[in-house]
Amino acid sequence: MNHDILKERQNATFDVEKLTNILDGGPEKTKRRREIESMVLSDPDFKEEDPNFLSRSERYEQAVRKSAQMILKLREYGIADPEEIICYKSMEKGHQQEALGLHYAMFLPTLYSQCDAQQSRKWLPLAESFQVLGTYAQTEMGHGTHLRGLETTATYDPATQQFVLNSPTVSSIKWWPGGLGKTSNHAIVLAQLHTQGNCHGLHAFIVPIRDMNTHDPLPGIVVGDIGPKFGFSEVDNGFLKMDNVRIPRENMLMKYAKVEPDGTYVKPPSAKLTYGTMVFIRSMIVGESARALAKSTTIAIRYSAVRHQSEIRTGSPEPQILDYQTQQYKLFPLLATAYAFTFVGQYMNQTYHRITGDINQGNFSELPELHALSAGLKAFTTWTANAAIEVCRMSCGGHGYSRSSALPDIYVEFTPTCTYEGENTVMMLQTARYLVKSYRQAKAGQQLSGIVSYLNETEHRRIQAQPASARPTVVDINDLASLVEVYKLRAATLVDLAAKSIQQELQNRKSQEDAWNNSAIDLVRASDAHCHYVVVKLFTEKLGEIGDTAIHSVLSTLALLYTLHGITENSGDFLLAGLLNVPQILQISLRIKELLSQLRPNAVALVDAFDIHDKKLKSVLGRYDGNVYENMFEWARRSPLNSSEVHDSFHKYLKPLRSKL
Amino acid sequence: MNHDILKERQNATFDVEKLTNILDGGPEKTKRRREIESMVLSDPDFKEEDPNFLSRSERYEQAVRKSAQMILKLREYGIADPEEIICYKSMEKGHQQEALGLHYAMFLPTLYSQCDAQQSRKWLPLAESFQVLGTYAQTEMGHGTHLRGLETTATYDPATQQFVLNSPTVSSIKWWPGGLGKTSNHAIVLAQLHTQGNCHGLHAFIVPIRDMNTHDPLPGIVVGDIGPKFGFSEVDNGFLKMDNVRIPRENMLMKYAKVEPDGTYVKPPSAKLTYGTMVFIRSMIVGESARALAKSTTIAIRYSAVRHQSEIRTGSPEPQILDYQTQQYKLFPLLATAYAFTFVGQYMNQTYHRITGDINQGNFSELPELHALSAGLKAFTTWTANAAIEVCRMSCGGHGYSRSSALPDIYVEFTPTCTYEGENTVMMLQTARYLVKSYRQAKAGQQLSGIVSYLNETEHRRIQAQPASARPTVVDINDLASLVEVYKLRAATLVDLAAKSIQQELQNRKSQEDAWNNSAIDLVRASDAHCHYVVVKLFTEKLGEIGDTAIHSVLSTLALLYTLHGITENSGDFLLAGLLNVPQILQISLRIKELLSQLRPNAVALVDAFDIHDKKLKSVLGRYDGNVYENMFEWARRSPLNSSEVHDSFHKYLKPLRSKL
Repeated sequence: MNHDILKERQNATFDVEKLTNILDGGPEKTKRRREIESMVLSDPDFKEEDPNFLSRSERYEQAVRKSAQMILKLREYGIADPEEIICYKSMEKGHQQEALGLHYAMFLPTLYSQCDAQQSRKWLPLAESFQVLGTYAQTEMGHGTHLRGLETTATYDPATQQFVLNSPTVSSIKWWPGGLGKTSNHAIVLAQLHTQGNCHGLHAFIVPIRDMNTHDPLPGIVVGDIGPKFGFSEVDNGFLKMDNVRIPRENMLMKYAKVEPDGTYVKPPSAKLTYGTMVFIRSMIVGESARALAKSTTIAIRYSAVRHQSEIRTGSPEPQILDYQTQQYKLFPLLATAYAFTFVGQYMNQTYHRITGDINQGNFSELPELHALSAGLKAFTTWTANAAIEVCRMSCGGHGYSRSSALPDIYVEFTPTCTYEGENTVMMLQTARYLVKSYRQAKAGQQLSGIVSYLNETEHRRIQAQPASARPTVVDINDLASLVEVYKLRAATLVDLAAKSIQQELQNRKSQEDAWNNSAIDLVRASDAHCHYVVVKLFTEKLGEIGDTAIHSVLSTLALLYTLHGITENSGDFLLAGLLNVPQILQISLRIKELLSQLRPNAVALVDAFDIHDKKLKSVLGRYDGNVYENMFEWARRSPLNSSEVHDSFHKYLKPLRSKL
Repeated sequence: MNHDILKERQNATFDVEKLTNILDGGPEKTKRRREIESMVLSDPDFKEEDPNFLSRSERYEQAVRKSAQMILKLREYGIADPEEIICYKSMEKGHQQEALGLHYAMFLPTLYSQCDAQQSRKWLPLAESFQVLGTYAQTEMGHGTHLRGLETTATYDPATQQFVLNSPTVSSIKWWPGGLGKTSNHAIVLAQLHTQGNCHGLHAFIVPIRDMNTHDPLPGIVVGDIGPKFGFSEVDNGFLKMDNVRIPRENMLMKYAKVEPDGTYVKPPSAKLTYGTMVFIRSMIVGESARALAKSTTIAIRYSAVRHQSEIRTGSPEPQILDYQTQQYKLFPLLATAYAFTFVGQYMNQTYHRITGDINQGNFSELPELHALSAGLKAFTTWTANAAIEVCRMSCGGHGYSRSSALPDIYVEFTPTCTYEGENTVMMLQTARYLVKSYRQAKAGQQLSGIVSYLNETEHRRIQAQPASARPTVVDINDLASLVEVYKLRAATLVDLAAKSIQQELQNRKSQEDAWNNSAIDLVRASDAHCHYVVVKLFTEKLGEIGDTAIHSVLSTLALLYTLHGITENSGDFLLAGLLNVPQILQISLRIKELLSQLRPNAVALVDAFDIHDKKLKSVLGRYDGNVYENMFEWARRSPLNSSEVHDSFHKYLKPLRSKL
């Protein structure tokens, strides 16, 4: 073990294992997680080549092999609990993606929820035995977020009792679905349903795209890979062009809407039912933001403890770069954010499961709030984590740019979360729509409950943009409860400003829609402030659950750092709303420096508590033992460019050049 | 041509060609640039495979081929002017790097500046005829920024009149130099010089590393590629480990320092001479930030004019996404920044050349200011552009994530500028050192001149953090001169705060060094504000040179947007310093929205004016003709994964799976 990192661990003021238990949700969960991880570690089949040294085709092939292997292993080990499956897979996958990801994440769940009884009997056994390999083809080349814009058509032909599927334009080609390019032999295709001369909007159809036996594309189908991307190299995100592809009537998913043999369309009873899945996935992404941040800060903080550079005192040995205030200022707020998002992720997960129970009993009352919250938090946490990964990478200097740091991989695999499952700006505007609606209800005299109750009329009469001098400030910058209040009032101010902007536009004779679009900047800011408030609130509430004094102390320091750092990053808002005054802002800057010093001895222990195994982290810079340089040299020597001492291009181009000059 | 983009061009209010001329520095320069670009375009040898479809080894080979080809072409065409060479190369390279980049950028210049007469006679002909292929090996695995920390040794042996070079530890292995891994047969190695029992610090040595004929590594040399990186895939950044490698005494670069045959060390006359190169390179990087931003905004804005999505008015056709206020708010400030940085780059270039004249006449007086400015602006512009490229990418939704957008390439090739040639935080602190020094001189009664004259005592007595109400505000938010003044006072306030933080630490009995480190956050903020002021000032000054009314008008709008957007992004600073009050901040938010609307009709024309040829931009999304979708389909079909209909992995893993379940 590197002696610097050993010393760091000796200096920690709390029991790392106990904090790991809190993060896992209890000591039993930690134990079980490690059991599952060691199944992968001790498995001789769990061998892989570093994907960084492979071509894209080889990477895809390795991912397919691992996906097939995981299916067998999970059965062998009898792992069936969804959380445990995720745990097993995430150990085996590392930062990479699963080749059959969409079969699990979208194809099967859609079958489960939208097949009628007869369809279930036919399709589930085929899909569960992986004879049918499926994906979910919604997005088109020219159409993403806006479902009504999708162009693919499914026209019912009563003569043959078939649907005829077509991609009428280039922009209607299905584009992006994972596993569509090479892996899947079926796709659930979302298409505009036409029957008896009417269009009934988007419906889902099971379309065979490749021969079950030969895997060749079927007639009328043009299918393939959409080409290399920033990351997701092992995934065959695909395209699908259909030219008069005929499928039997029974291939329309008919649990809710139906087309009868004569072509009569039968409406679905309710539209609210698909709501839940989106909320679930977005809630999960909050957790992914936390995990990406945990990985990135683990790498950057461990490396900063090992790396020595420059000098603070002339003539003294080079200090650990973690001793530089600027380095602490880059990393410790992100460490605090990793903890904040972990707790928010836990909360979202619990809330989702609690509300799911209600929904199953027909009680939808909490769903709109959760829907709005999951949209905004998905955007808030992914944007934050996305930028943070890059800060971590650059805080490692040049070596962060090497693939051996793992940070480039973490970034490119994470960054799509800002776009998929609801583009972030669109998500922020969805949350804003809920906030403005609530604001108006409060204005109209309705009493709001839940997380938006701060918008109640009695509250927001007090809070309008004004100079600090105009009203007394009684904020204690060391008291989290007091700071949560300040974040709440900031959110209220910004919702108020956004709502007033809309009102102003309406008074200028703009249409509702234009008024909304012309206020969109303010609406996004309001959502952002709302989410920030929720995160600060949940982090603070979590502290109440922590019994261990030493851990309570260090987490409180993190929570205070997260909160005060958020204020300095947005100090204009707090000054503008008159919530803090100039001396307080200056005082907060000083306080942050104290908190950085306070956290310094626990920094390595705090990332250790995430307990991310080296084989999962896959980072030379972030190794637990801190032996960075020896291992970086060893890693580099395995680079394919080093497989021969002299590269062919010397003989082909460089040597001949001499004679030409 | 796509009809949307055609319409955009018809709506422009200014002559695009005239603006292109301004950006190029005159119509003749535009003409010559296009001539050079068309040499590449019309050249049948200028054919390449899309590097996104190649393995790393193939990418390296293609880069070597192109580098060799460029050498011959430049001779054939008689292009010798450095600017014209850059123009030719940047057209041929696209977003990629040159295999022989460091031979040109570091090896040859170091020979020119540090060889004595005899060495020049020997080495220059060899290097200029590419028999010697060289690189510059300074950075070590464990040591970057801090030169005194480098561990490689060169020990003089008077018995044989040789230097003996050693890499005494793993961390001393040379690491990162471009072209070191496979391409170069010589390296200029920076090593600690030991002679007659004393160490004389870092000196440069010419070390043969590969056989000139066979290209095999020489005895005692372990050399190779450091492995895959985030980008720079065609570059063989390398490692070099030396074990008692002996080179003749004459291989030490002896223009300044010398070692005599008996081992006597002769000191160099002055240390200031290497200063200039760093300043030059950092100034150049400011221009690179501008070019990266120009490329990225070209892609994102053209695509936003072509892409239709969602709805503003229910039932109406999907609008161009450029009509969304949030999209304008993402992109137009970045467009303004691209223009700002272009003009700052021009200024830095001119200033460097002006001052070089002075330096050659022994006048170093302006060098410290330029040195400080180039360090800070390098950091300020690269950090800004780095984040901006990703905003542009994500503003293109999912398609931005495809390599066909070119945005991932632009990002990974650009992002190292934040780290190399001086890590950005270190750069900001260098500028801060100059600012604090100037501040103290002013305090001591000295009258400052140049760009820091705002720190003169008479000025900064007025400017300390205070509530807005405490003093009258006479800022006109529509007047650029008035806003430049506000930025200046903000910088002064933050320099004052940073200097006071140091003072406070010293009063708390901290050492000078600790006081500096404990104020580093404030120092970086002060530098940032200083650089921001300089950019705003230079953009505003540039407007004075624009004669054409229509162009003056649109550039003024851009400058105002850049300036006001910077205020809202940092509103806390301006409120804190009492430079603006709350109503003004709210007014600025409204004004920004007006400016976005005002720029909307000219957005495409403003990126067209950058005049980046499609073959250079290499982006399907950013195509001049706007025919995005057809070409994306065509590009995807060329993906190597599509070379066969059925991938091997189906037969190897997916089909066998069925029988196992």
